[in-house]
Amino acid sequence: MARVSQEHLDARRRQILDGAALCFARNGFHATSMQDVLKEVGLSAGAVYRYFSGKDELIRAIVSEVLSEIRDIFESAARQTPPPPPDVLVGRALGQVLDLKPGLVEHDRPYFPRLLVQVWTETLRDEELRTLIQDGYDAVRAAWVRIVEGYQAAGMMRADVPADRVARTMIAVAQGFAAQVALFDGVPVDALADGVRGLMSMGEPS
Amino acid sequence: MARVSQEHLDARRRQILDGAALCFARNGFHATSMQDVLKEVGLSAGAVYRYFSGKDELIRAIVSEVLSEIRDIFESAARQTPPPPPDVLVGRALGQVLDLKPGLVEHDRPYFPRLLVQVWTETLRDEELRTLIQDGYDAVRAAWVRIVEGYQAAGMMRADVPADRVARTMIAVAQGFAAQVALFDGVPVDALADGVRGLMSMGEPS
Repeated sequence: MARVSQEHLDARRRQILDGAALCFARNGFHATSMQDVLKEVGLSAGAVYRYFSGKDELIRAIVSEVLSEIRDIFESAARQTPPPPPDVLVGRALGQVLDLKPGLVEHDRPYFPRLLVQVWTETLRDEELRTLIQDGYDAVRAAWVRIVEGYQAAGMMRADVPADRVARTMIAVAQGFAAQVALFDGVPVDALADGVRGLMSMGEPS
Repeated sequence: MARVSQEHLDARRRQILDGAALCFARNGFHATSMQDVLKEVGLSAGAVYRYFSGKDELIRAIVSEVLSEIRDIFESAARQTPPPPPDVLVGRALGQVLDLKPGLVEHDRPYFPRLLVQVWTETLRDEELRTLIQDGYDAVRAAWVRIVEGYQAAGMMRADVPADRVARTMIAVAQGFAAQVALFDGVPVDALADGVRGLMSMGEPS
């Protein structure tokens, strides 16, 4: 048997994951068969099953990877000093999330947001994945709470609102906007920062 | 054959839809079989197929109903005079959405948010449902744009941010928060209004 380099193995694994991600983003985890995946990646069953025992393992690998990449983006966003205001922080984090997997495109449309909505659904029915997304959310929330406490300590934000609630809301804006990009046509990706800026300016009638 | 009242027919149809919604919320549209639905509603196949030709028709009926109820809530929210500020408007609309289908509960947990995330996923792969959710979003967005233009005309919000972007962002907060309630444990449902109120107070360092 020919020896194959680790580099080759990694590239092959990547090729399978990317092809499968496209199939899943297109049609959902459950309506996609391993045959669809094999056809998309252009490999034989034998070649694919060498890397993944089946569809379930492929789904878990993709969901874990997506969740971990998003967690990294949101945690890194919170490490900026000084922390940018909410419109910049949330807008930038969402922009980075939407730029993940730039090759995942179909009909001239980025398909990563579609994959993300599918990932959420999948965590509802798999306890292991549910723990993974809950842990990621808790970690991101803790990091963003510290940012909000910083705004409050600097007198930039009213201090009588629990920082945890503002952090949850900032994460919700990003999540909801990602859902809109997945679900609706023509959503301008830079609308989020502008929209948050509008909300931040809200005051009494003049 | 015995004559049955319209009331009876409606109640039976409702019973099937509610049982199916619980199955779908629990396990997703695609991992749920008609057998699961029959078992949940406690009716024979013959009784159920009298109302719905199969799982696809059942899914479309449930998705259409959910989307139409949510659209109503968001459109009504925009008809309040004077329009409440964003924290109250979004918080109240989300509260009403989360109160939909109060009977849809399992493990002491409201299951409607789970159903909603499943509904989003389903619109990604069914052109008819995609049109339905896009139309609903466009109508809600138009209604909320008018509210934002009102804030801007009253001098309550900076006018150099397109109202459409603020409206999209307000909808995103509600969507993202609904996703959090579905995906994560212990999300306080009244956190959203507080969180938006915090964002609205954001200003320069004091």
